[in-house]
Order: sequence, then structure tokens, then C-alpha cells
Amino acid sequence: MYYDTVEAMNRAALEELQLERLKLTIEKARKSPFYKEHLAGVNTDDLKSVADVTSLPFTTKDDLRSQYPYGMLTRPLDDFVRLHASSGTTGTPTAIFYTQEDLDTWADLMARSMYCCGCRRSDVLQNMSGYGLFTGGLGIHNGSERLGMLTVPAGAGNTKRQIKLIRDFSVTVLHIIPSFALYFAQKVNEAGFDVKDMPWRIALIGAEPHTEETRRKVEEMMHIKAYNSYGLSEMNGPGVAFECIEQKGMHVWEDAYIAEIINPDTGEHVAEGEIGELVMTTLLRDGMPLIRYRTRDLTRFVPGDCACGRTHRRIDRIAGRADDMMILKGVNIYPMQIEQCLMSMPEVGQNYLIELITEGVTDQLKVKVEIKDEFFVEDMRALQGLQKKIAKNLCSEILITPRVELCQHDSIPKSEGKAVRVIDNRKK
Amino acid sequence: MYYDTVEAMNRAALEELQLERLKLTIEKARKSPFYKEHLAGVNTDDLKSVADVTSLPFTTKDDLRSQYPYGMLTRPLDDFVRLHASSGTTGTPTAIFYTQEDLDTWADLMARSMYCCGCRRSDVLQNMSGYGLFTGGLGIHNGSERLGMLTVPAGAGNTKRQIKLIRDFSVTVLHIIPSFALYFAQKVNEAGFDVKDMPWRIALIGAEPHTEETRRKVEEMMHIKAYNSYGLSEMNGPGVAFECIEQKGMHVWEDAYIAEIINPDTGEHVAEGEIGELVMTTLLRDGMPLIRYRTRDLTRFVPGDCACGRTHRRIDRIAGRADDMMILKGVNIYPMQIEQCLMSMPEVGQNYLIELITEGVTDQLKVKVEIKDEFFVEDMRALQGLQKKIAKNLCSEILITPRVELCQHDSIPKSEGKAVRVIDNRKK
Ligand SMILES: [Zn+2]
Ligand SMILES: [Zn+2]
Repeated sequence: MYYDTVEAMNRAALEELQLERLKLTIEKARKSPFYKEHLAGVNTDDLKSVADVTSLPFTTKDDLRSQYPYGMLTRPLDDFVRLHASSGTTGTPTAIFYTQEDLDTWADLMARSMYCCGCRRSDVLQNMSGYGLFTGGLGIHNGSERLGMLTVPAGAGNTKRQIKLIRDFSVTVLHIIPSFALYFAQKVNEAGFDVKDMPWRIALIGAEPHTEETRRKVEEMMHIKAYNSYGLSEMNGPGVAFECIEQKGMHVWEDAYIAEIINPDTGEHVAEGEIGELVMTTLLRDGMPLIRYRTRDLTRFVPGDCACGRTHRRIDRIAGRADDMMILKGVNIYPMQIEQCLMSMPEVGQNYLIELITEGVTDQLKVKVEIKDEFFVEDMRALQGLQKKIAKNLCSEILITPRVELCQHDSIPKSEGKAVRVIDNRKK
Repeated sequence: MYYDTVEAMNRAALEELQLERLKLTIEKARKSPFYKEHLAGVNTDDLKSVADVTSLPFTTKDDLRSQYPYGMLTRPLDDFVRLHASSGTTGTPTAIFYTQEDLDTWADLMARSMYCCGCRRSDVLQNMSGYGLFTGGLGIHNGSERLGMLTVPAGAGNTKRQIKLIRDFSVTVLHIIPSFALYFAQKVNEAGFDVKDMPWRIALIGAEPHTEETRRKVEEMMHIKAYNSYGLSEMNGPGVAFECIEQKGMHVWEDAYIAEIINPDTGEHVAEGEIGELVMTTLLRDGMPLIRYRTRDLTRFVPGDCACGRTHRRIDRIAGRADDMMILKGVNIYPMQIEQCLMSMPEVGQNYLIELITEGVTDQLKVKVEIKDEFFVEDMRALQGLQKKIAKNLCSEILITPRVELCQHDSIPKSEGKAVRVIDNRKK
């Protein structure tokens, strides 16, 4: 059974548990060379509630780099049984170390996560992700076995074999990246099968950031329910936050993590429901605890209670990286906010461009948007109406009214590789 | 601690344990559709000693194929948490299923195996093998964690990153296939490092069949101790038999398996020390026991006791596949026997060819052998001496005196891909 009563604990009790574990974590962390110094000024007796976590200093990716490889460890190296490292061969990498206890905690959280979106012991999971140093492979694998699912370690690639395995073993759950899922659905059709006849019912697609639109596309093209999740190797890997069957945000497992959302500029908490940088503190990590770790990932808390009954707060899908943040007229704007808003409108095509300009003494936001041919009509009034609608929708999302320019299909130059979506032409 | 007193048990007690577990295994196996029928005539009360295992019927690869996927399972599918399958997309594949108990047994045996060749909890193991459906990846990984080694799941490929990981984390144990090890040693040199300065001390190279000569080459080129092992997915995967630090054969874990060596033609046991087909019975497999499984792998029991003190019998490195067996004048001959004999002689070059011919009414064995340039001298007496020496060495290995023909370096045509080493020109 991987539904834990802790998932539906009332907030007061949950926060008490968090406070208790936070104090233990601080004491544990101090056994590492880094935190011994970093937390020198901290007295755990001063922590009266979990909200006091804000009195603790942040930990950054640069800290991880400067402590590479062993400066964050609270135990002798002999006590560790696993490491995952960033894969770069240049620059200073980062590495995360796990004791057997950490692997057990991770597998438990991962199993809970999969249970939460409807996976059961009787399911058969095919892990279509690469293994190795990437935490997604072994993370999902160990969680799936922990939950008791029959686990098929298919690995990445080889579409034909994937299809054969799925059919031969009546696979009901796929772990698959969303971009591959869309390609895979096509391949299944090309192989002469109807996706409706495939045995699958659940796709775990959280390994790669994607939009709500992509999720719906995966669900439609594969005839499957697709669930998003959030994880990062610094917090074990996958299994940090997971969607329940309501599909309205991802529950952060708050008995294992303290999640905060801050203004990346000021370090202060944002108002409830506002987008900011996710900051995470481990509460159950044994060998390498991290306190107030700046994930650089942007999200917001989803307000209100979840219909599933779980009390752990939900975060929204990741809205980009903190490094992408623009500040305009004192307001923080994230390109992903604009993208999500645009892509939710049926009139909008595939491409857009965000431009920051200076007019006189004030900075302005300009958004060029490609419009689908069927909406790019000769009727000026209709076009103006569309222009206003887009500007209004954007304003309600980013709190600034941009200048919107409508463009024809394919008129915005496409860049090779990662699309350039933001151009800053402001005068400094 | 992964040295188990069972490893040094006296033979009588060990065989009693085997008998007891064999009976339990038969009862368990009968819960599967296949064995219910296959073992219908068997009464476990008739098994008076483990030697009576010979009264049981064999299980073959064809049985596995005909029962694909679920016919061998002793439990409901829900009780299984892992499967490994042969990777082909054509033909009938085979699949092996594991319960959590099976995975635990496997990890224990794997950890014991690694301990046996000198790996310790304080070691750092880099797994340079692919993961996925191939049992070598997850098998070694889980065993390494079970032993308590810090495990780096590097996966296959990416030489540069492998070197960086090895140096950054002071890796002491490599899991690497021997052919890649030779290439890798070169790459380490090219990257400007001396293999003597690398932190490694142990290479587990059993994932791929190889000769003793190759092992010595790996040891020399990498400045490492290399250990051979034996495993096959039908018997879990790696960890079935493993070399101890004596490097004189691989101990078969006889508390977990009954090993027999038979004449593949007659099914009878061969004489002690003779080469034949390895037949394995699982004694600790829960969900998918296999009884007298014909591995098609050729080996022999290494006679005598091992200096390490372990009482479990040792098998020699795999001498090819049963399907390669030739019968000449009523004697079984395996090409690998000839290869190993030739390659152990310093005068012999890279290539050779075995030819079966009919002269009059008798069949003959002809072996063409390339001789290294420095031994291919103008002195006829020396050449004749060499010819006789080779024939004599071969005869002592295969019990038949072949005609030996000495050839110059590069005079035997090389074939693309897998070398053709045997030509049968006999008249039927
Ligand atoms: Zn929910
Ligand atoms: Zn030994």
C-alpha cells in the first residue's frame, strides 16, 4: 500500500512534523564541512514554527559546485552506495550522494507518487527512459518495483521493440518523455496498430518540461491519461512532486520537503499564488541534506484544497528558469507565462517573439504573434479585435499591457536548435 | 559482510542443503503450468541424494520459448516486480520474471560474488555497462549497492566522461567488457594519463566471453586485476559463478544452483574434468524456478580444492556453445579448445582454421595455424619441431592428433564479422 496517512494530515500537524524534521536536518547537515560553517549562526531553538525556515541561509548550485565532490556529505564516504552526477565533461560538475537509507526514502516517495496518479501493484510499467547517471531511469525503476508493479526496463529508443514489449506483456503504465510520446504514437499507427487497442492507461511524462497543451495532445494521440511530475537530482530525482488523478497541480511531498516560492531578486516569499523561484529543503535526506536550495525553477503554489483529499500543497507546472526572468516597470515577467497564455488561444500559431524596447524614457514590451491562416482574415475590425483580446489576456497574466503585433504564419524567423524567444533592445 | 559460511561448507552438508532445496524447488515449480505437466512423473521421495537430480527431465530454451510469456510462472503475475527479456524483435523471445524475493536473492549472490574477488564496502564501483533489458547492468548495479560499494551508474560509452568520473570519484572497481577495456586503456593513454596513476584496482570483465590471453592483456594494459564470471538471464543474470582472487576457475554458488556437466549428445554426465554442456537447476528461485536447464554453454569442472577455502565447485571459462561441438572418430571436440590451446603458444599468430576432411574411409582433423614472422624461419628442422609441438599440444587437449599446417602471417583469409573457424569438408 502506498497511500500514507501522512498525505492527508491536517496542516497544523504536518507543519509540526516539518519543524521537527527541519531541526533534525539542521543538526545532521552540520556534520558536513559546508554546513558546519554555513549554518554557524543558526540556533535551532530559535525556530518556533516551520515559517522560521526563512531565517536560514540559502544554498545554491554554486555552493554545490564549490563543494564538489564531497564537501556536502554528513557521513564517511564508505556509508554511501550511489551517486548521480551532472553529465558535463567541462566546467565543474555537481554530484549527489545517497546512502542506502536515502535510496529507500526515494523509492518510497517515488512509489507514493505513482500510486497518487493511479498506478497500482497490479500494473505493468515500461520504463522507456535511459538509465545511468540520469536520475529519471533508476528513480522510476526503483519506485515502480517498490510499489510492486511488474517493471520492464526497456530503456530509451528502439520503437519497434518498445511496441512488442508493450503488447507482449500488456503494459499499462509508460514512463516516457512527452516529445517522444508524440513521435511514438505516430510509430504505433505506422506499425498498423490502433492506439485504442494498446493495453496502456497511464503515461508518466514529467521527465521533461512541457505545456498543458502538449499534455492534452499526448493524451489524445495516445489515448491515455498523462501525468506530470517534478523532480531534480539535488532533491533525489523524480518523486518530489506529483500530480494526482485530478491533474490540477503537483502535490509536493511536504513530509519530505519544505517548499517555498521566492522572488528570485529579493529572496522574499512571493504572495500566495504568484510565480517565483522554488526553494526546497530536504527533511528526510540522510547523507546529503540540502537546506533552502535555490532550484532556479519557476512555479507557483496552486491555491485552494485538492479534491483528492491530500493536504500537501500543489505546485503548478514549471514556468521556466529563474534566469529567464525579465523585470519591466518593476514587475517580474517570465517568458513561459507569455508562451502559456498565447498557446492557450486557438487563433495563435506556432511561433512568437518577445521584444523589450525603450520608447522615450519608458520601457515597453512588444509581442509579435503568428496567427493561424484561417484567422488572418481581410477584415480589419476582426484583426483589431483579436489584437485586443491577446493584449488583454496577456495583461491578466503578466500585469502589464504589451503591444501586440499580429503576424502571418511563418513570418517570424525560426532559429536552429533552442528557439530565441526574447530580444532585449532596451537602452541601458 | 558478504562472505557467507555457506561458501566454505563441507561437501556432505552442502549436498544435503542442495537436496532439501531441490525438493522444495520441485514442489514450487509444480505450481507453474509447464512444470505441473513436465514433472508429472516425479516423486520427490525418490530423490535420496542430490545426485538423483539426473532422474529429472531437462528444461530447454525451446521450452522457455513455447511457454512465453507466462507458462513458467509459479505465482500470479501481480507478485512479480521485474522482467528481463531477450531483445530480439523477430522470432519467439524468452522472458525471465522476478519477484521481490528473487531480486533480493540475486543481489545477495551478486554481492557475494564481488566480495569473493576482493571488492569491499569501501570500494567505488563504476558500472560501464548498459542498463535496460540486459541483466548485466541492473544485476551488477544492485549487487554493488547491496555490498555497500559507492556505485557510479555511468552506463556504456562516452570514454571522456568515464575517465573524468573515475578520476573525480577515485573509482576502484570497474565493470567493463574486455573488448572495451582494451580500447579504453588506449584512450586513457591518449588523454594523457598513465594507467598506473588511475585509482582502479579491480575489473569485472565477465560480461563477454574471452580467453585467458585477453584477460592477461587487460590486466597488463590497464594495470589492474581482472576477474571473470559467469551468468545468464535464465539463472537471474550475472552472479551465478565468479572467480575468487586465485583466478583459477569460477566458483558456482552451489547453495543456489545445482551445476551438472553433460555430454550434449547423450545427456549423460561427462567424466570429472571433461568438457561438456553446463546444466543448471535453481535452488532459490521463487517465481520462476528452472530445473536441469540446458545452458548450451560448454565448460568443465576444475578439479581439486581451491586455495581460497571455498568448497563450491569451480567451472572453467566458457569454451564455446554446445551447438559448435564436432564429433570426430567418436570424440567430442570443441573449436574453443583448439583456440585456447593455440593461443597459449607464443609462436602462434592471430589466425587459424579448422578443417574436417575425409581421407579414404577415415575422417581427419586439419588445423592451419598462422605463425608469427619471427618464428617462421628458413630452418626446416625448426619448423618441423614447431609443427610437432603444436600437434602434440592439441592432442593432449582434444585426444586426437590433428594434421598441423604452418602458415605465414596474414595468409589465412580473414572474414568480415564473426570469424569462420571451422570448415567441414567430410564426405557424408
Ligand atoms: Zn490531489
Ligand atoms: Zn577460490
